[in-house]
Amino acid sequence: MADLTVIGIDPGSRFTGWGIVREASGVLSLVDCGLVHSEGQKNKCFSARLARIYSGLNAVLGSHNPDEAAMEQVFTAKNAASALKLGQARGVAVAACAAHGLDVSDYEPRLVKNSLTGVGSADKEQVAFMVRRMLNLGQQRLALDTTDALAVAICHLGRRRLARLAAKVS
Amino acid sequence: MADLTVIGIDPGSRFTGWGIVREASGVLSLVDCGLVHSEGQKNKCFSARLARIYSGLNAVLGSHNPDEAAMEQVFTAKNAASALKLGQARGVAVAACAAHGLDVSDYEPRLVKNSLTGVGSADKEQVAFMVRRMLNLGQQRLALDTTDALAVAICHLGRRRLARLAAKVS
Repeated sequence: MADLTVIGIDPGSRFTGWGIVREASGVLSLVDCGLVHSEGQKNKCFSARLARIYSGLNAVLGSHNPDEAAMEQVFTAKNAASALKLGQARGVAVAACAAHGLDVSDYEPRLVKNSLTGVGSADKEQVAFMVRRMLNLGQQRLALDTTDALAVAICHLGRRRLARLAAKVS
Repeated sequence: MADLTVIGIDPGSRFTGWGIVREASGVLSLVDCGLVHSEGQKNKCFSARLARIYSGLNAVLGSHNPDEAAMEQVFTAKNAASALKLGQARGVAVAACAAHGLDVSDYEPRLVKNSLTGVGSADKEQVAFMVRRMLNLGQQRLALDTTDALAVAICHLGRRRLARLAAKVS
């Protein structure tokens, strides 16, 4: 079975978490992860903040060259104004992936939480706990935007594993 | 005074209008314009539609190589769900510009309408009428998403002209 390297992205208008996970011979490992900061551009227009997200993700994708990309689908937001900001950040992330020839697999947030913790309504701390455990990160502290990004990458790898098993059986 | 070529973009989750306007010796002319269609992907996830917007705009930017880019800023939407869709389309458009080294200048919708028609609350048909007149397009029919895109490009060129004049005076 070939190795598979997946980037998970958790976009936000202030911080965009990203995490790259490799599965080799059925074993998951952390390749790299981090946050793209796009706040602190208060005097600049919002498009300048978005461009910063793009250049940050572009650099990550260029240096790690993942095989596939995954992101949570977003259906709701507090209000239309925050939905517009979040939506734009997410659009930038999808475009950054498209620029590197990567299709993005969308996952419902409940599915991601369920696949990691067994509970669709798990909170971010519970998801972070499972991410640290599945990637053997010990007590290493990571931002919750980063663990959310790693979670969707791990969820995607799990789905791909199931798909391969299903293909073998049929 | 050097020529200046500007792309205006009017992003949407189904249709993204784009229009490229050149100003040479104070005279405006249409370079090219069109629509990127991203609907008709119902069986695909939303990210696939966004990737289509990216590849469409990427092709336009690559073939025309405009000097600058302009887009309407969006502050409101009918509801959070449509804001998320619109926001993502807009984020993709900003990222496509960033990928071509273009900063995007944001303009308030009222300012764009006002700079073309003299009325901040003008409707799309009135804006389209002025776009056709300013670019000498006669009765040529264009989609309203396209004329909106041309309008923001024309607005941006007007602002740049004013800035140059102000710099000369001071």
